[in-house]
Amino acid sequence: MAFLQDLYPDDYSHCHGCGRLNPHGLHIKSEWRDGETVAHFMPGEYHIALPGYVYGGLLASLVDCHSIAAGAAAAMHAAGELPGRDQTPRFVTGSLHVDFLKPTPMGIELVLRSRAEEVGARKVIVATSVMAGDVEVARGKVTAVRMPSTMAAAG
Amino acid sequence: MAFLQDLYPDDYSHCHGCGRLNPHGLHIKSEWRDGETVAHFMPGEYHIALPGYVYGGLLASLVDCHSIAAGAAAAMHAAGELPGRDQTPRFVTGSLHVDFLKPTPMGIELVLRSRAEEVGARKVIVATSVMAGDVEVARGKVTAVRMPSTMAAAG
Repeated sequence: MAFLQDLYPDDYSHCHGCGRLNPHGLHIKSEWRDGETVAHFMPGEYHIALPGYVYGGLLASLVDCHSIAAGAAAAMHAAGELPGRDQTPRFVTGSLHVDFLKPTPMGIELVLRSRAEEVGARKVIVATSVMAGDVEVARGKVTAVRMPSTMAAAG
Repeated sequence: MAFLQDLYPDDYSHCHGCGRLNPHGLHIKSEWRDGETVAHFMPGEYHIALPGYVYGGLLASLVDCHSIAAGAAAAMHAAGELPGRDQTPRFVTGSLHVDFLKPTPMGIELVLRSRAEEVGARKVIVATSVMAGDVEVARGKVTAVRMPSTMAAAG
């Protein structure tokens, strides 16, 4: 099975967070696993907030792109498609909420796990947990909205 | 008057979003202006979401670092200190919420404006607006928490 972001159409694969075609990007990669969507990410040494701790803006970016992929996967699943095999539809972020529960230590691979709480035709509510080892360091809630046709092929 | 982030202590000036000592960072700079805190930021061409539009994770990072500075400035003001002249105390992010109101076009300098809604001894609630020209593209709400002493000088 492929990563969800690797199955976005080429025109929508330039995202700084998760586009495979953005050479300066974070290349966040998420996998669908039977109802849960999972990503692993190792922060770079320059992704710091205070010495020893990971930058919250990076965590917000991870929650954002990962949850959008999770929302798309949930919508695919609801429509009888197979996430990770069929093309991933492009959703955009309606809103992003992150609670920072604990300082996130540097030097540990982070694991993000998402589940869809509501799956509608146009939007999906996704709950995401960010783990550093056994510690839940952040919790996110994202409203993923199916990309409006007015945003297609702009720029 | 100096930018608020340029008055963080050296030990807390490595933040990827706003630290003057992080060579790979975004260098977000915020100014206190009589009760309002303002920042200007020009996204790089690689900060894209979909072609033509700015990456939401960048907007979340801008809202985060800028609102934290705004919260610190409001706390200083409440304590009779002068933001932009006296040392800025380091706050951290308790929670971050961003509503993406409109797609944010590339190629326009963004302006962030923040006001503190509640100023407590330990935490400040900050409301932030992100403008692209005359259009409000995003609105943020951040809980800024005074850095706990347990985070000091880690790593």
